[in-house]
Amino acid sequence: MYKVKVFVTLRESVLDPQGTAVVNSLHSLNYKDVSDVRIGKFMELTIEKSDRNIDDVVKEICDKVLANPVIEDYRYEIEEVVAQ
Amino acid sequence: MYKVKVFVTLRESVLDPQGTAVVNSLHSLNYKDVSDVRIGKFMELTIEKSDRNIDDVVKEICDKVLANPVIEDYRYEIEEVVAQ
Repeated sequence: MYKVKVFVTLRESVLDPQGTAVVNSLHSLNYKDVSDVRIGKFMELTIEKSDRNIDDVVKEICDKVLANPVIEDYRYEIEEVVAQ
Repeated sequence: MYKVKVFVTLRESVLDPQGTAVVNSLHSLNYKDVSDVRIGKFMELTIEKSDRNIDDVVKEICDKVLANPVIEDYRYEIEEVVAQ
């Protein structure tokens, strides 16, 4: 079994209105030192072992379902869990 | 200047309908080995240096704005960036 962590972030060049809204909220709460916020997604997947290479599977899943490669970047960490 | 990464996840006991929807999509795309998906948020903050302890500031911001402590857990990583 694998535990996979996927981090999806907006590309540098893409505007992040949600992040801007959070910055504005923080400023109005007097956290003036926060100069930038970018908001992305964090996903934890549990994947059972199979014949296929786990790295290929995760890459496919990210490209097809979890991220939009046009506006988003992703990176992932794979951790093998030994069943108890 | 600090770069802070915040990971917000739903608590273990809280249902994640968005994650369930992703699992179902993946199954219908024939990724049957994916048994669970939990979806959270990943935020990158840029915070300028100030007199206050950065750890206290980040904790406050997470509790007040970025996470809902009733249903969500969070963890964060603080990295100091030296201006060039």
